[in-house]
Amino acid sequence: MTKKMFASDNNSGIHPAIMEAIVQANDGHVPAYGSDLHTAAAIKKFKEHFGGESEVEFVFNGTGANVTGLKAMVRSHQAIICTDGAHINSDEGGAAEGVIGGKLLTVPSADGKLTVSGIEQHLHNIGNQQRSQPKAVSISQCTELGTVYTIEEIKEITSYAHANGLYVHMDGARLSNAAAHLGCSLAEMTVDAGIDMLAFGGTKNGLMMGEAVVCFNKELASELKYIRKQGMQLGSKMRFLAAQFERLLTDDLWLDNARHANGMAGLLAEGLMEFEGISLTQPVESNAVFASLPKEQIERLQEKHSFAVWNEEENEIRLVTSFDTSKEDVESLLGDVRKSFS
Amino acid sequence: MTKKMFASDNNSGIHPAIMEAIVQANDGHVPAYGSDLHTAAAIKKFKEHFGGESEVEFVFNGTGANVTGLKAMVRSHQAIICTDGAHINSDEGGAAEGVIGGKLLTVPSADGKLTVSGIEQHLHNIGNQQRSQPKAVSISQCTELGTVYTIEEIKEITSYAHANGLYVHMDGARLSNAAAHLGCSLAEMTVDAGIDMLAFGGTKNGLMMGEAVVCFNKELASELKYIRKQGMQLGSKMRFLAAQFERLLTDDLWLDNARHANGMAGLLAEGLMEFEGISLTQPVESNAVFASLPKEQIERLQEKHSFAVWNEEENEIRLVTSFDTSKEDVESLLGDVRKSFS
Amino acid sequence: MTKKMFASDNNSGIHPAIMEAIVQANDGHVPAYGSDLHTAAAIKKFKEHFGGESEVEFVFNGTGANVTGLKAMVRSHQAIICTDGAHINSDEGGAAEGVIGGKLLTVPSADGKLTVSGIEQHLHNIGNQQRSQPKAVSISQCTELGTVYTIEEIKEITSYAHANGLYVHMDGARLSNAAAHLGCSLAEMTVDAGIDMLAFGGTKNGLMMGEAVVCFNKELASELKYIRKQGMQLGSKMRFLAAQFERLLTDDLWLDNARHANGMAGLLAEGLMEFEGISLTQPVESNAVFASLPKEQIERLQEKHSFAVWNEEENEIRLVTSFDTSKEDVESLLGDVRKSFS
Amino acid sequence: MTKKMFASDNNSGIHPAIMEAIVQANDGHVPAYGSDLHTAAAIKKFKEHFGGESEVEFVFNGTGANVTGLKAMVRSHQAIICTDGAHINSDEGGAAEGVIGGKLLTVPSADGKLTVSGIEQHLHNIGNQQRSQPKAVSISQCTELGTVYTIEEIKEITSYAHANGLYVHMDGARLSNAAAHLGCSLAEMTVDAGIDMLAFGGTKNGLMMGEAVVCFNKELASELKYIRKQGMQLGSKMRFLAAQFERLLTDDLWLDNARHANGMAGLLAEGLMEFEGISLTQPVESNAVFASLPKEQIERLQEKHSFAVWNEEENEIRLVTSFDTSKEDVESLLGDVRKSFS
Repeated sequence: MTKKMFASDNNSGIHPAIMEAIVQANDGHVPAYGSDLHTAAAIKKFKEHFGGESEVEFVFNGTGANVTGLKAMVRSHQAIICTDGAHINSDEGGAAEGVIGGKLLTVPSADGKLTVSGIEQHLHNIGNQQRSQPKAVSISQCTELGTVYTIEEIKEITSYAHANGLYVHMDGARLSNAAAHLGCSLAEMTVDAGIDMLAFGGTKNGLMMGEAVVCFNKELASELKYIRKQGMQLGSKMRFLAAQFERLLTDDLWLDNARHANGMAGLLAEGLMEFEGISLTQPVESNAVFASLPKEQIERLQEKHSFAVWNEEENEIRLVTSFDTSKEDVESLLGDVRKSFS
Repeated sequence: MTKKMFASDNNSGIHPAIMEAIVQANDGHVPAYGSDLHTAAAIKKFKEHFGGESEVEFVFNGTGANVTGLKAMVRSHQAIICTDGAHINSDEGGAAEGVIGGKLLTVPSADGKLTVSGIEQHLHNIGNQQRSQPKAVSISQCTELGTVYTIEEIKEITSYAHANGLYVHMDGARLSNAAAHLGCSLAEMTVDAGIDMLAFGGTKNGLMMGEAVVCFNKELASELKYIRKQGMQLGSKMRFLAAQFERLLTDDLWLDNARHANGMAGLLAEGLMEFEGISLTQPVESNAVFASLPKEQIERLQEKHSFAVWNEEENEIRLVTSFDTSKEDVESLLGDVRKSFS
Repeated sequence: MTKKMFASDNNSGIHPAIMEAIVQANDGHVPAYGSDLHTAAAIKKFKEHFGGESEVEFVFNGTGANVTGLKAMVRSHQAIICTDGAHINSDEGGAAEGVIGGKLLTVPSADGKLTVSGIEQHLHNIGNQQRSQPKAVSISQCTELGTVYTIEEIKEITSYAHANGLYVHMDGARLSNAAAHLGCSLAEMTVDAGIDMLAFGGTKNGLMMGEAVVCFNKELASELKYIRKQGMQLGSKMRFLAAQFERLLTDDLWLDNARHANGMAGLLAEGLMEFEGISLTQPVESNAVFASLPKEQIERLQEKHSFAVWNEEENEIRLVTSFDTSKEDVESLLGDVRKSFS
Repeated sequence: MTKKMFASDNNSGIHPAIMEAIVQANDGHVPAYGSDLHTAAAIKKFKEHFGGESEVEFVFNGTGANVTGLKAMVRSHQAIICTDGAHINSDEGGAAEGVIGGKLLTVPSADGKLTVSGIEQHLHNIGNQQRSQPKAVSISQCTELGTVYTIEEIKEITSYAHANGLYVHMDGARLSNAAAHLGCSLAEMTVDAGIDMLAFGGTKNGLMMGEAVVCFNKELASELKYIRKQGMQLGSKMRFLAAQFERLLTDDLWLDNARHANGMAGLLAEGLMEFEGISLTQPVESNAVFASLPKEQIERLQEKHSFAVWNEEENEIRLVTSFDTSKEDVESLLGDVRKSFS
């Protein structure tokens, strides 16, 4: 038995069914760069979930998916509005600025969600040649704080954005977890809710690696493949990225994995709430639990468990579950929390 | 039996031993982004082959490896000297210009090799503020035309370059094939020959995907990891890239694969030379055969085989062998060539 | 008599002595791109003021001066720390992000000044490959709010920055006004206080156009001229930029102009403070007066005068004086303020 | 009497009428950044010459004008087709690659002109995701070799380009000289001939500094001002750029200056052709004379005159005349040529 970590869902490995798909795709020679049958089949699966008009491009990682999609939407003299904690702003090494050359206009957010009034505050200088011109909004579903936009919240943002000439991008690195939480389809939260461009995450949901740029706006689709290539995100043995997605989107594997991870986070949250001295700092709506607990308990837990201290000053930690987190893993952690208080 | 293609070595799949390494690395949770044991082990293997001073960063693909390494060497107002047929100039979708912002200064080359006199012609404007200032030379080993620099040829270039304040980058997408041809170690062609930065290829030699940026010049090493991240080349589940390299560099798998592919190319070339009306257009020194044959024969072959028409006007085709190309594959192709002439 | 505006010091024209210098420089043919005697003479003047080790490059405008200097200091994966109101962040159309490709890390500031603790909050992720790495601090002297750093404040920042591996850039679009306020030399606030790179402003102090990048750090100097050219800031008839600076730095013209403008701002501030219902929102330390007054008065004043409403919600206006603002201009404005209250 | 140089037309100074316009524009305060009456008047003049649909943006220099216009036409994954000697490729310090991030695809040209067949050779990879996609053609009128496209030649290029989805940019740093040569209006060579975007030169034709981006294609116009600002080409005291153009385009000053310079070049060419041992290497169609003469004569001339050795190996020199080159200047040079042969 291998100890599981709560540091991130990318500490987990490859789901067995995905691994099997990789192994089976390893059959002889096939054309490179996406002209193979696995890529065609995977794109077909995406169209089943997101509608037949979707344009799909597979890329290597989440930063690649976000920046490729955003670069199709904004030019360097334009700006992207997002929360200050957005992954594209905080954890992608300046890729958006470096690859696109544009500016991120950030909005502080306590729960990770962007709001219409947050967007609005950055629209005062439309037409002012001395300011980067907002052209896109980017939201994360789930957010970086584990919260989930309702479909209504998303529609409110897309309506406002479109009315103001802004495209809407969604960082869906954990989109499946959001669907599991909302009990809705992938399309309902995205294309049906007015999203123009999606980064659909696979790596955090059981893939070895692989994300998909899914474009719902025809005017943005035609140049995606060139942007992907210049952004160094075109894989040659594409079938091995595609085969993973083909399998993930078959027989609800994407949903089962996400439901399981969410369920484990729920279990963990329930357990933690029983301790006086521990409080949840965000609602638990996906596969992440944010909690504050005394510094001493944090330190004792760190001896046996791996997780992130999210905010050192506030003794806030982040615990992330995965498709392969087991009840035993959760109970083991909770047991050590118990010991830390004794 | 699956038909093999001669279109490119990236049409092949994953070598069985590499696949096994991936499967074995899929064991529980490990830290992401390179803080795992497979990454440590793979880097150790690189240091065994290239010397303990090497800095190694794994990336997703060849364009990522080339541009990450080159970006550590040149700033946007500087230039990179390479042949006009260099992969970085011809087949990377403008990634060098887009990600680095610098200029490629090209030299025509009939055999894919750069020469000192070719470099020299771009050094006339050193100090002229109106010209991009050459700061790096990039050579490909093997070249895009399947030819291989001798160690002496490499040293001549690195000596001249260093004497003129230029770094030397090597695109080693097929470096193993060059080592197999020269019968030398990986170090002898690279660090020992004065190369500053290497893109070491895995994908074309049996990996699912993965390339390594290997830096031999201490002054260029420290910022590589940030350049990799901003260039969207940092994999989260790094162990699966690393485990492939760990295995590739163990028990001479890299060399066996390359030798086999080179051997099949040699067999193919021998067979082709027996036909009147077919001539080799480049020396066969690695796993590619460039040949010209009558247009009619090309068209008949294309009905059953997959390969690139390299130069349509000159009826030149390119046939690439791989680690898994078999004698039967070669004989099948030669048989069809025979039929095409009858 | 022409009405003066209080909207900005770049609404003013060319100081007569500067105009005369332009006319006199218009004498026959001279080498282009800075190989002329006026450029040599102007650089000599800069060295007299800033020390013989200074590297000086003339550029067209303030954005050009800031970005050229900053680009010599940071690479695209690095970051610049500045206040959120810094001109480079707020009013340069995304030039820093677009031309450098790097990230601006901002610090809120009520008085326009950056502090050590503000810088410190952005240094928590040094060495974290997923974050843009801070490499430079940029401060504005005077600030965008008309305040002036004391020499001690500057030294505190440069000491802290250098101790943390950060270069310090100064946006000196109104540096002369700061010198007039502090009663110190140009060198005391810059090179002597540890500044690495300065954008020295001419346009706002009586020039037709022209700014100077002045580099005090030898390791940053050598590539400036190429950065200037790639940044499209190299003037061909350089003598006409240079001659203006040559004159500005002669016979204390730079200081007289700045003193005069500061004096007029002082007069204006004094006058405004006499009105109940008007309060200054920033200390008046240079040639700008920030004041809040009732919305009705603002609207009445706007009928006859040109100035910026700085913060609409707080009824804050900005009044900027210039080298050619006269007592009569000030009195005329004050008179209309008086009327607006009656 | 001041000796004139034949090194470049930017060695000349400011035409007296232009200087007077600058002096007269120096009258009190006016709004900055282009909201002044001189800018409005200058734009009106442009519309008179180029048609009422033209969008005009003033910038500082030729590189700024070229790159601003080109950036409105191509995105970073796209390419610009031009001759290898095009100023944007050879003499702008990598600004196109650095600021746009795109690729220049060059065509060798003996006379400086691009041809349809030259463009065609770069269109073989349309739709190939691994290649930068051509999106614009850039031609120089006059070319860098002093030759002038006929209106028919321009139309042939624009027709072919538009039929293939390419915009056409014209580097008109010396457009006035071309008009003087062809005896046509400015519009006939540009908007009427299908040009989409023009860089109209002022500096080489008697201005102190200043170029204009003139856009004839409505779909490209709207973002020009933001591109200009991010490209650091927005002047604050805009009136002084605008007033120069206002005057240049009044009373045919632009044409008189160009005619005069062309005439002096013609005189010079005639004189040179009388010497055995001197041959013109390009037709003299504007204000530049390219000639080859013995190395010894070149060296003797260099003692007294300033000019460029264009091609050292072929003993080819370039002599450029200007609006203020006099017959005496030409005769003085010819006299020294005569002496050098004696």
